[in-house]
Amino acid sequence: MSKIAYVNGQYLPQSQAAVNIEDRGYQFGDGIYEVVHLYDGRYVDEDLHLSRLERSLREIQLPMPMSRAALSLVLREVARRNRVTEGLLYMQVTRGVARRDHPFPAKPVPPALVVTVKRIPPYPTDVDKWQAAAITLPDLRWARRDIKSVNLLPNCLARQAAREKGAIEAILYEEATGIVTEGAATTFWIVDEKGAIRTRHLDHVILPGCTRAALMAELKALGMAWDETPYTVDDMRKAREAFITSATSFVRPITKIDGAPVGDGKVGPVVRRLFEIFARHVKGDLKNAA
Amino acid sequence: MSKIAYVNGQYLPQSQAAVNIEDRGYQFGDGIYEVVHLYDGRYVDEDLHLSRLERSLREIQLPMPMSRAALSLVLREVARRNRVTEGLLYMQVTRGVARRDHPFPAKPVPPALVVTVKRIPPYPTDVDKWQAAAITLPDLRWARRDIKSVNLLPNCLARQAAREKGAIEAILYEEATGIVTEGAATTFWIVDEKGAIRTRHLDHVILPGCTRAALMAELKALGMAWDETPYTVDDMRKAREAFITSATSFVRPITKIDGAPVGDGKVGPVVRRLFEIFARHVKGDLKNAA
Repeated sequence: MSKIAYVNGQYLPQSQAAVNIEDRGYQFGDGIYEVVHLYDGRYVDEDLHLSRLERSLREIQLPMPMSRAALSLVLREVARRNRVTEGLLYMQVTRGVARRDHPFPAKPVPPALVVTVKRIPPYPTDVDKWQAAAITLPDLRWARRDIKSVNLLPNCLARQAAREKGAIEAILYEEATGIVTEGAATTFWIVDEKGAIRTRHLDHVILPGCTRAALMAELKALGMAWDETPYTVDDMRKAREAFITSATSFVRPITKIDGAPVGDGKVGPVVRRLFEIFARHVKGDLKNAA
Repeated sequence: MSKIAYVNGQYLPQSQAAVNIEDRGYQFGDGIYEVVHLYDGRYVDEDLHLSRLERSLREIQLPMPMSRAALSLVLREVARRNRVTEGLLYMQVTRGVARRDHPFPAKPVPPALVVTVKRIPPYPTDVDKWQAAAITLPDLRWARRDIKSVNLLPNCLARQAAREKGAIEAILYEEATGIVTEGAATTFWIVDEKGAIRTRHLDHVILPGCTRAALMAELKALGMAWDETPYTVDDMRKAREAFITSATSFVRPITKIDGAPVGDGKVGPVVRRLFEIFARHVKGDLKNAA
């Protein structure tokens, strides 16, 4: 079956789904995106993702292409037409088609909306098999990383560098301070040498991860604490455990960084527990499951 | 006559010229662009622009979509089919179409090439009418601004902010140091309080402007000096004159910054002379005209 994409009001075979070459997404990366995990037909943390989409759009003065309820229906229709119940829904909103000029179109044009879905492997059940390696790289991105824009070239270059070293993620740090920001496309966490669960606080320097927020809500409900004080690459090297979170990584153990083991190099007890908590969240078994 | 665009081997009416929604240019801004000024059928500084294109592509490990000679022919064919002799040629190379994933496609796909042309008004003959206002803004862009990528959202936001204040350009500065980097889409220059022509030196922090290089070559041939020592916003506020350069701005006087006059607020003698020198360069009247 050929894949079906939603593009500006039409459902089209994905191979023929196209946007005009003057779509500002193509010429300027003038757009916002989100990825929602579809588990057993369930849209995991959909509200968090749609709220973040609205926020990112607002930050770049771009209107929603349709109401939130209508967009939610489009997500469902794309999944239905593709008969996908385990996958990733991708949505992208751009400032539409206009003669190339940096400022927003003087005469407003309708924003463009593209939605696709892709199948993914079954949800990981064995956390030991889900562990992976990462590398570290300076964070070269722009100053507004809280906006989930499609200006993703630095992220692509970092992920490519990771792949070339047999790793799945690049952990980014501020060159001036050594402070860890986040992964190229994930939130990064450690269990520090004292056993504290840590991830960087939110501001313009990192993306407000939806999986980060969902996991925190579950931790709070379980009476578990975490610490959002920034930490450096040196702190990270002393960590007992490390992991990443995202709508596509869930809770994923990072057991090797720059070729060296994290702690004893095995999946540790804290990450093991968080993996299980988040799996229950995804499956809707917990109180905070959206 | 409907406009004709070149898209991946085909010449198409621009309204129907499209790229697949999974073109990495659209999903990641994973691409490079150039703009070449076409004056009276003459491709101004074409060699500089094609060399910079090659360099930018190399920096992100993207091959040229065709030989430089073939690309040059496509530029000519696009201009010819559109019967444009005074315009701007736009070319964009992206990493092609692949299932969405941050690293480069594991199985390489052909890079995508789009070329368009648009008509522009006749070359400015009256420098006084060519003067314009600018604003200042912190430079929020990524760390590799020497790469001319289509990750242009911060540039668009800056230009939009300028337009909202009745200005045509945003002069960007590093927030930590106050050092002026460049315009959102131009090179920025001042004639400082002592009369020296100044613009920031090249490194990863700014784009190596082709018009900047061409103007410098003309200045050198004329025995005129300039200074590439960085200067701050405070230095800029004391400048006698200011101007921007780019393939679309040529030499353009900036006589008002953040609502205050630069010097006496009129086009000064140095910018007046540089405007004339560059006009002769564009027209091919000077030795260094490419």
